[in-house]
Amino acid sequence: MASERILPTIHSPADVKALPFEALGGLCGEIREALIQTISQNGGHLASNLGVVELTLALHRVFSSPKDQIVWDVGHQCYPHKLLTGRYDQFSTLRRENGLSGFCRPEESEHDPFVSGHSSTSISAAFGLAKAKSLQGDDGHTIAVIGDGALTGGLAYEGLNNAGRSKDRLIVILNDNKMSISRNVGSVARHLAVLRSSPRYLRFKKGVERFLQKVPLVGQPLDRAIVKVKSGVKSMLYGNTLFENMGFTYMGPVDGHDLGKLCAVLESCKSIHQPVLLHVCTVKGKGYTFAEERPKDFHGTSGFDIETGDAPASRENFSSVFGREICDLASGDPRVCAVTAAMTESTGLTEFSHTYRSRFFDVGIAEEHAITFCSGLAKNGMLPVFAVYSTFLQRGYDELIHDAALQNAKIVLCIDRAGLVGEDGETHQGVFDAAFLNTIPNVTVFAPSFYAELHWMLKEAVYQYKGVVAVRYPRGGEPVPPQGYTPAPASYSLLGGGAKVLLITYGRIFANACKARESLAQKGIEMDILKLNRIKPMDPQALYIARGYQKVFFFEEGIRTGGVAEHFGFSLLSGEFNGTYSAHTLPDGFIAQATVASAMKKYHLDADSMAQIVEQECEL
Amino acid sequence: MASERILPTIHSPADVKALPFEALGGLCGEIREALIQTISQNGGHLASNLGVVELTLALHRVFSSPKDQIVWDVGHQCYPHKLLTGRYDQFSTLRRENGLSGFCRPEESEHDPFVSGHSSTSISAAFGLAKAKSLQGDDGHTIAVIGDGALTGGLAYEGLNNAGRSKDRLIVILNDNKMSISRNVGSVARHLAVLRSSPRYLRFKKGVERFLQKVPLVGQPLDRAIVKVKSGVKSMLYGNTLFENMGFTYMGPVDGHDLGKLCAVLESCKSIHQPVLLHVCTVKGKGYTFAEERPKDFHGTSGFDIETGDAPASRENFSSVFGREICDLASGDPRVCAVTAAMTESTGLTEFSHTYRSRFFDVGIAEEHAITFCSGLAKNGMLPVFAVYSTFLQRGYDELIHDAALQNAKIVLCIDRAGLVGEDGETHQGVFDAAFLNTIPNVTVFAPSFYAELHWMLKEAVYQYKGVVAVRYPRGGEPVPPQGYTPAPASYSLLGGGAKVLLITYGRIFANACKARESLAQKGIEMDILKLNRIKPMDPQALYIARGYQKVFFFEEGIRTGGVAEHFGFSLLSGEFNGTYSAHTLPDGFIAQATVASAMKKYHLDADSMAQIVEQECEL
Repeated sequence: MASERILPTIHSPADVKALPFEALGGLCGEIREALIQTISQNGGHLASNLGVVELTLALHRVFSSPKDQIVWDVGHQCYPHKLLTGRYDQFSTLRRENGLSGFCRPEESEHDPFVSGHSSTSISAAFGLAKAKSLQGDDGHTIAVIGDGALTGGLAYEGLNNAGRSKDRLIVILNDNKMSISRNVGSVARHLAVLRSSPRYLRFKKGVERFLQKVPLVGQPLDRAIVKVKSGVKSMLYGNTLFENMGFTYMGPVDGHDLGKLCAVLESCKSIHQPVLLHVCTVKGKGYTFAEERPKDFHGTSGFDIETGDAPASRENFSSVFGREICDLASGDPRVCAVTAAMTESTGLTEFSHTYRSRFFDVGIAEEHAITFCSGLAKNGMLPVFAVYSTFLQRGYDELIHDAALQNAKIVLCIDRAGLVGEDGETHQGVFDAAFLNTIPNVTVFAPSFYAELHWMLKEAVYQYKGVVAVRYPRGGEPVPPQGYTPAPASYSLLGGGAKVLLITYGRIFANACKARESLAQKGIEMDILKLNRIKPMDPQALYIARGYQKVFFFEEGIRTGGVAEHFGFSLLSGEFNGTYSAHTLPDGFIAQATVASAMKKYHLDADSMAQIVEQECEL
Repeated sequence: MASERILPTIHSPADVKALPFEALGGLCGEIREALIQTISQNGGHLASNLGVVELTLALHRVFSSPKDQIVWDVGHQCYPHKLLTGRYDQFSTLRRENGLSGFCRPEESEHDPFVSGHSSTSISAAFGLAKAKSLQGDDGHTIAVIGDGALTGGLAYEGLNNAGRSKDRLIVILNDNKMSISRNVGSVARHLAVLRSSPRYLRFKKGVERFLQKVPLVGQPLDRAIVKVKSGVKSMLYGNTLFENMGFTYMGPVDGHDLGKLCAVLESCKSIHQPVLLHVCTVKGKGYTFAEERPKDFHGTSGFDIETGDAPASRENFSSVFGREICDLASGDPRVCAVTAAMTESTGLTEFSHTYRSRFFDVGIAEEHAITFCSGLAKNGMLPVFAVYSTFLQRGYDELIHDAALQNAKIVLCIDRAGLVGEDGETHQGVFDAAFLNTIPNVTVFAPSFYAELHWMLKEAVYQYKGVVAVRYPRGGEPVPPQGYTPAPASYSLLGGGAKVLLITYGRIFANACKARESLAQKGIEMDILKLNRIKPMDPQALYIARGYQKVFFFEEGIRTGGVAEHFGFSLLSGEFNGTYSAHTLPDGFIAQATVASAMKKYHLDADSMAQIVEQECEL
């Protein structure tokens, strides 16, 4: 029977609906198999996808996408949805260049109504979609599926607050697996724990069953009055949930791996024509023992051995080096604190979180709060270090301006995944931070190319500078340090001297520049390199040096407008400079998924491209 | 007795503490008098300050600032606090150049522990301050005072979620006046209404009194066990409040104008050494009839007649013109929606909110949600227009990138208060938007100088462009249109032709440029003006024109780094251009409060300065 697989025959949600209920269990197994198979090869999010297999199936049984729209928060759990909406055949291209995205992409399918990637956006997005339908007289439903982790983000709360009062056909499904990426934190997490374990939970389970018996399967509107009375009685007996306080009808908790119950409760949600919050309890990693046991390891993986669950040993990288360095600083200084927004492991803070427990703060997926909280710590004399991915720091732009820079609060930002991030694609590229930090006064930015530089820059950031100080470093490991180059604690380094051609750059692509320099030398083209260690504020001395050259090239792994290359170039060109200046940066656009190496090549930031560009210009 | 005023004798919180309780009523009256007197002259926030007079007094009776720290959310209600913390003598300088700020400023007083201006930051900031104290063994208290309006912001929720679980001496005072700037909206507002009016309210009032009788006045720690039992019993009997769900001990509601009760309940808050939320009910505008009756009119005022409550008739301004134009568009197109983040009146949307009720959305103080919600509306075919102050749009930077621009969602931003804002000072200057929007792909930005331009640009934005389209205009009215200048719907306009000197600018200071041109002409210096109507993306034709000049000046009412002047200049200088280019912009820093005219002069953006700069350079 193994040959008669169902999944290859599913080309749309209509095919899901057409299956007999008895076939669904088998289909779940096939989906899990496909997930494990592909993710073990391509990398991606495993545990969260394994957790929502039944929920996804149930949604496509009960609702009709694309008329009914499903918005997956973050989107890292949308793989089963992709498999059921006509993308099974392409699934092996997941997260590869020109392949399927690891998140939701409207351009990929009509079943992805809204882009995803960052956290906590789904309720706001779904409410907008639902409201548009109401205004247009469209009776379709809109469903947001949000994890308990994403619920710690303020945007989710703003969405709940705005939507709760409405009369739109909005269903928020809380996928409660007790985890954000790390174990979930904060008061809301505790509240959910209470809901899961309180007498209310048990009684409500029985209540749901009785209640469901009365609900016609094809979703006749329920008697409003009954719902209201029930809700009134409930709150008197069991206390209000957070969600009822926010104006939602609360249903659940329901077992997220029981397909029958899920379908039944979704039918009843469908019949309530006002915002409903359905609390679904799932197990992250469900169905793959290694992932159930170690969900954190299988949140995002770059591949693993299916039989053993082993991933390639993780090598040293900028995050782990940062983690070590920050522990060193903390051991000698009781003022040093570390803050993360639900990214303890991936930013390298695991060791710190154990060793300096009282000075470690996982604030939830709440980058804005993290910055304002750090400013508070700083104003009373602590030395907070906030480790955050470049792409997520975007959330804190106003807080950086208003709560930190304006009062010159001394906070340190350790910006991880700065620059190209590879397979996560458009939503996660760390290509904006250099530009947006450029627009904020009282901010200093360092860009290490090597671990040794991260070491001194972090120390410098913590002890030598006032105001906001950022240290930005890329995903992964350090490039091979060029022969003969010794990192020195200065705002820039000059390689060579006396040539007529100068290449300026910063960060990891400095290594590419060095290689380009070697190959140009072999062709008889002499080129010096100006490596910027501090990219903001610009060192006037670096400008002064650049003025002495005939041809200046700036290569930058970041967007063009407002970036360092443009800012440096403007300062150079509007001063006394008689040479030519050309900036080679990432384009002002969204960079699609691809390996970092491939993207570097595509955008001419690899060593060969650099050499070629310089050579061509020098021939002119 | 009228001559023996108390307020002039208060130089610090210690003086407040030393007063007999019977004197406090009189002091309240004097504070209100001072508020009304000064604000009627200088403008500022009246209603919110009148509402917290008793609360402020009670705080300084019970707590000891600066050891105990008070963080006022937004800060527009901190005037009584200023009057009681040694700033009475300077109070007449409020909101004037070099005078007292209308918000909290650490550099102004040790009694202002954290900067304020934007909404919803106080809980995060106070939690940071409180946590630092705990880590340092400091037993001082930290108090955040937050309005029910500010509580709609996601940052406040992130703060509650993070703080609720802690054991720090943090007291959050919810100043519930049922208003944000407009009447408060959303589910949380409804929840507060329930708390105010439920049987719980009445019973709790009695409960508090009995409870307080047992609490020693000098704040002995309460028996933890009793608090816990009480809290358990309460939630069983009356249901949980939002705040209890967030892990706070909830106390209240209490009458915010009853000094005796306030002091007593604050004493008991002080004795609970874990996060407490105290719900205080106040009347916005309390004690000044006109403000009580029309709190919205007295939220922010630019001055008024004390006897009649009349403000100078508000003249037509960019906001009111926008309000009219958007109604016009909505009347002809059922897809047009208007969205505001608690700024209905001040962004000019009052008429729209009445006439197109179903398409009007006040989402609360939630700019991030506003953008994601708009993107949802747009993806399902509506035409959302989000009217927002420049400074508050900073909150939505990530949502603009991730939820709007990335999927090219068609949303229109009407950016009010762009450029210098005058007396509100550093926290409110609209000087970053041109630069940060420059960093976002798929964004178009228009900058009208006159109402007639706002008219065509808005239409163009709604109907002719894809993706995110912004129209940014300043606070207040249009400048006097220069003689002979007729706005034309094109991405730029060239005044003159054939001169060797070119001045480029955009927005309202175009009028200053025209005056400068006239005065230069009288001195025999011919100058053309290139006025940019669309500042992003840059029109290559505008660049082409600029190339033909010997001397090019760019004047910009915005920050330098990443701004339009720098971006334009870089493009010009790195192309074929043999002239000189000089950019005159606001500095990369925070612009202090002053009238717009004074700041324009200070930063050389007025007509005289422009003429002088050009003349000097032409003489070289």
